Amino acid sequence: MTGRVVTHVERADAKVIDGLASAGVSTVHEAQGRTGLLAAYMRPIYPGARIAGSAITISAPPGDNWMVHVAIEQLKEGDVLLLAPTSPCTDGYFGDLLATSAMARGCRGLIIDAGVRDVRDLTAMGFPVWSRAVHAQGTVKNTLGSVNVPVVCAGALVNPGDVVIADDDGVCIVPRADAAAVLEKARAREAAEETKRKRLAAGELGLDIYDMRPRLAELGLRYE
Amino acid sequence: MTGRVVTHVERADAKVIDGLASAGVSTVHEAQGRTGLLAAYMRPIYPGARIAGSAITISAPPGDNWMVHVAIEQLKEGDVLLLAPTSPCTDGYFGDLLATSAMARGCRGLIIDAGVRDVRDLTAMGFPVWSRAVHAQGTVKNTLGSVNVPVVCAGALVNPGDVVIADDDGVCIVPRADAAAVLEKARAREAAEETKRKRLAAGELGLDIYDMRPRLAELGLRYE
Amino acid sequence: MTGRVVTHVERADAKVIDGLASAGVSTVHEAQGRTGLLAAYMRPIYPGARIAGSAITISAPPGDNWMVHVAIEQLKEGDVLLLAPTSPCTDGYFGDLLATSAMARGCRGLIIDAGVRDVRDLTAMGFPVWSRAVHAQGTVKNTLGSVNVPVVCAGALVNPGDVVIADDDGVCIVPRADAAAVLEKARAREAAEETKRKRLAAGELGLDIYDMRPRLAELGLRYE
Amino acid sequence: MTGRVVTHVERADAKVIDGLASAGVSTVHEAQGRTGLLAAYMRPIYPGARIAGSAITISAPPGDNWMVHVAIEQLKEGDVLLLAPTSPCTDGYFGDLLATSAMARGCRGLIIDAGVRDVRDLTAMGFPVWSRAVHAQGTVKNTLGSVNVPVVCAGALVNPGDVVIADDDGVCIVPRADAAAVLEKARAREAAEETKRKRLAAGELGLDIYDMRPRLAELGLRYE
Amino acid sequence: MTGRVVTHVERADAKVIDGLASAGVSTVHEAQGRTGLLAAYMRPIYPGARIAGSAITISAPPGDNWMVHVAIEQLKEGDVLLLAPTSPCTDGYFGDLLATSAMARGCRGLIIDAGVRDVRDLTAMGFPVWSRAVHAQGTVKNTLGSVNVPVVCAGALVNPGDVVIADDDGVCIVPRADAAAVLEKARAREAAEETKRKRLAAGELGLDIYDMRPRLAELGLRYE
Amino acid sequence: MTGRVVTHVERADAKVIDGLASAGVSTVHEAQGRTGLLAAYMRPIYPGARIAGSAITISAPPGDNWMVHVAIEQLKEGDVLLLAPTSPCTDGYFGDLLATSAMARGCRGLIIDAGVRDVRDLTAMGFPVWSRAVHAQGTVKNTLGSVNVPVVCAGALVNPGDVVIADDDGVCIVPRADAAAVLEKARAREAAEETKRKRLAAGELGLDIYDMRPRLAELGLRYE
Repeated sequence: MTGRVVTHVERADAKVIDGLASAGVSTVHEAQGRTGLLAAYMRPIYPGARIAGSAITISAPPGDNWMVHVAIEQLKEGDVLLLAPTSPCTDGYFGDLLATSAMARGCRGLIIDAGVRDVRDLTAMGFPVWSRAVHAQGTVKNTLGSVNVPVVCAGALVNPGDVVIADDDGVCIVPRADAAAVLEKARAREAAEETKRKRLAAGELGLDIYDMRPRLAELGLRYE
Repeated sequence: MTGRVVTHVERADAKVIDGLASAGVSTVHEAQGRTGLLAAYMRPIYPGARIAGSAITISAPPGDNWMVHVAIEQLKEGDVLLLAPTSPCTDGYFGDLLATSAMARGCRGLIIDAGVRDVRDLTAMGFPVWSRAVHAQGTVKNTLGSVNVPVVCAGALVNPGDVVIADDDGVCIVPRADAAAVLEKARAREAAEETKRKRLAAGELGLDIYDMRPRLAELGLRYE
Repeated sequence: MTGRVVTHVERADAKVIDGLASAGVSTVHEAQGRTGLLAAYMRPIYPGARIAGSAITISAPPGDNWMVHVAIEQLKEGDVLLLAPTSPCTDGYFGDLLATSAMARGCRGLIIDAGVRDVRDLTAMGFPVWSRAVHAQGTVKNTLGSVNVPVVCAGALVNPGDVVIADDDGVCIVPRADAAAVLEKARAREAAEETKRKRLAAGELGLDIYDMRPRLAELGLRYE
Repeated sequence: MTGRVVTHVERADAKVIDGLASAGVSTVHEAQGRTGLLAAYMRPIYPGARIAGSAITISAPPGDNWMVHVAIEQLKEGDVLLLAPTSPCTDGYFGDLLATSAMARGCRGLIIDAGVRDVRDLTAMGFPVWSRAVHAQGTVKNTLGSVNVPVVCAGALVNPGDVVIADDDGVCIVPRADAAAVLEKARAREAAEETKRKRLAAGELGLDIYDMRPRLAELGLRYE
Repeated sequence: MTGRVVTHVERADAKVIDGLASAGVSTVHEAQGRTGLLAAYMRPIYPGARIAGSAITISAPPGDNWMVHVAIEQLKEGDVLLLAPTSPCTDGYFGDLLATSAMARGCRGLIIDAGVRDVRDLTAMGFPVWSRAVHAQGTVKNTLGSVNVPVVCAGALVNPGDVVIADDDGVCIVPRADAAAVLEKARAREAAEETKRKRLAAGELGLDIYDMRPRLAELGLRYE
Repeated sequence: MTGRVVTHVERADAKVIDGLASAGVSTVHEAQGRTGLLAAYMRPIYPGARIAGSAITISAPPGDNWMVHVAIEQLKEGDVLLLAPTSPCTDGYFGDLLATSAMARGCRGLIIDAGVRDVRDLTAMGFPVWSRAVHAQGTVKNTLGSVNVPVVCAGALVNPGDVVIADDDGVCIVPRADAAAVLEKARAREAAEETKRKRLAAGELGLDIYDMRPRLAELGLRYE
């Protein structure tokens, strides 16, 4: 089943993608019904980045980064590379040379359920990566994987062309077909939160704003 | 046993609490006989914060942050929220809206043996959090827990009103009744360290300053 | 077998050591045939440091930092302390007082397969540490270990006098006798990478630069 | 997106399912191109069980086992329950009462990316479970999940009706539509292995049986 | 604070303790409101043991088992040793000699949030242990700890004299003063379960026995 | 540095090796000064096995078991295979076919800091394995490693020909040159333990047998 490269990938609308980036991971995750998150161990190599893009997926053997080269050819402006190893691995599949190449093709970042290296250079270049590990461990180029096939990455199913949103809170996947609808809900959520934020900042309690007291009492909450 | 909110919490003297913050976690931990530390996996969401405050404790079900709202009402100026889930959980119980509300009540920070989200916003707001994980995973509001009951948080027993000290070295709990005595010992320790620091900086060896050579020789240390 | 301090340690040439620091962990690791890396869980306490030095090795019991004092006496200008506990431990063996002492002896940093504390002070002092954990947990001074014996640290064998290179990508060990040859290969590698970086930045693909297409086709890669 | 119960599930042919059980996890995994395995942390509660069945999938909140009751109604003879929590959890969702109910409906076992309890009783009943943890921690019944929707369980995508094979080597998923073809390949593989086993038992080497020496020499393997 | 041995320990009634053993961990945990469980990583060294006894608690330094000898003197017939290290440790604090001594004093087993060794002998002797690890790693006898002080063991608070129940599902602590009341609830729970078990075995559904359908419908569960 | 096979391996005396097996891991580990243990995560696939043999070492890439075939040719009667991956891996490198081949060459077992599969068959064959994981995940045969070179396996340095002892307590390495001396100490230790065991079984306390009371009092142990 390996050794496949799917060259045609449908992508979501660029404005929708950028809107999802602006909303951020936590809001988008809520907006689509609390689904699509990658595992909590996926952490950014530096704080503050917030991106969204279309997933170019890579299924790679442990310790073998050959398919990253194949995937880079499939990148279009605004895409995000997303790599899932076929068994758990923390090797450094990706460094500054691959980042140089990916950036030249318009890539916005990398999501990798494995390791990354050259993080000082990547930070200087402004190429954001969310990874399971930072490790200098080198990889080989001996075994085929696949590009642009469905993968399970850090516990989430990702299809090529799905929208990847990533920031300091983690990484969230929005299926391509749902992107516009999720964005709409995310914006509604942001608007609603703005009002609440002001009331909370003024000292009102969530207990009152959300009218929680009756149900808490009904369930038996006792103040002593 | 759940569903309890204790509304009256004894707190330590504010000056003692601030003194403990100034001493920092490592010094306080030594000063009280190397007890009271939370597990090493409790890490700050940004470097450099150093706080102390009285613990408002929360015992919460996994994936359910309802009790955080209940606890915020119990906060007084200078308090710290401290949440222990009833079974292991990395969900993001707490984000920028709850932080806005907690800050409006005078809360100095959050200690949570679970996940936190909106960390970019929390960093911008200057609301420090020490957590087991950063994750966008949302929570529900369906099940009662308790507020201001004794909890075991990241391996340490915490009673409501205990003093929580947190900085880049982790989190330490000082029982309320011991706070003044521990502060006194911490200050004595700091004074003693200052002298040693100067001698060490001048090149003197700990082997000599602490007179370790005789006992090392007695135990059989061999130089080859 | 414990209780030994080897006082004479052969060290590599200072210029070679500094050259290896400049090359960095990932390049050095590749240059010596992808060997010598410590485990990925060894992380720096602050980003951006890049050091190399001769290893002064410490084999220490869990929760006992006595041998650190013994090791500091053995330091020479340009050395790096490297501690491996005899069983897994995350206690904070090392803090700002020991760092003050080590710096006064010319030490460039600490590699510790255990915990470190006072990290705010260490950061302010510019004393870099790569550790398994940050934890305030104190240690005792009751049991002998050894200094300058071979140790296994975070999965790698380290002999006293081996060159330790450490940066944001992790920690790599180069056997003393190989240091000059590895540096030569590292420089050759850097030169080769520079040319490739320019071509990749201009949009050329690794698939073409490295002539990967024929072998990929031979192995059966299919574009769909 | 939660709160759905899909009542119609296509299942693979019963003989095919039983054939896959007989082949076992490692052989089936190889036969379908080394895909479909759940993570290595999924372990049986007792050794020696080997089952296969059609997946009745459960997506459940952390610490809430309500949907297990809903799923049991959907069981048919020969099915296997498979539960994935929506965030990581080790609570004991399932014990002897639920097993009694599931067995009464023809269920062959449980795959759960969380905890299980009453394992002494389950062992006595002969109800096999593969789980991430064994823990007595109880759960609540407050929040909806879904039954018979696609889930990611321990790193693998599972659709309702997929064939689940489980034994001491772990758990493997075969998509329903591929089941017959995979069984055929598994049987061919078993036949081929039988011949090799005899030759290996007689002392022949894999190096010769698989004709590995020329390629090893070509890649530079050196005997010293 | 270390170096204390409390020699007088109140114990629960022997019949109550034996009743709790017979009920088992999962039932007792439920009966006392889902509290008191140790972490899921505490596993028995062999399957099938089920014990209860009064806790003789040990607070021990990492890698130092001296206090076990001190604790054994405090044992009475029917007690259980329970050891919590002051920082995380997997060393083998306890083996067949200590078990011989403990058994001679009437000890029913060991709960240890660290390692154990000689497990083949312990199994042959029928001395059950629940531990975080099995490891041959030896310990020293250099540093004081305490015996019969409150400890946090694997996430649970334990006071000397509390009842420890342990079986294949893990370990549960019942505060001494609650033991009789918890036993009563446990027996009521067992009786209620017996009826349900028969109905479930006969094919009735939990959905009906517990009358779950109306509330599921109210929350919006949809059958498709 | 990879691609080497060392064909001449010095081995310890067969009677010494068998004597070490009989002493077992914990005793041997103590007898050689508490060194040589592999990490606690190395566990047997079935209980009760106790072996010793000369190490045939394998350094293998992650997910590539080619070198196992090369190593089997180097086996002599009484040897033990020991595999260390070059980066962390839990793949199933070894199953029943390789075990058949290894047994035909006189191999006594496998130590692998990675995964193993076909454990039901291996158990039936009586071929013991100590591993980090059990997982069906298949491997490839694409990249060279080395055979009979020094490796770091699960935290311990192993040279080819070193004696490997393994039982339910874990795995211990004795350098070949030390084997006879360590055996002598192990036997002395066993003899001494036998006397102590009888005294302890008769109810004498370790506090008295080892004369611990004076030193405990001197350090300040207080009975309350």
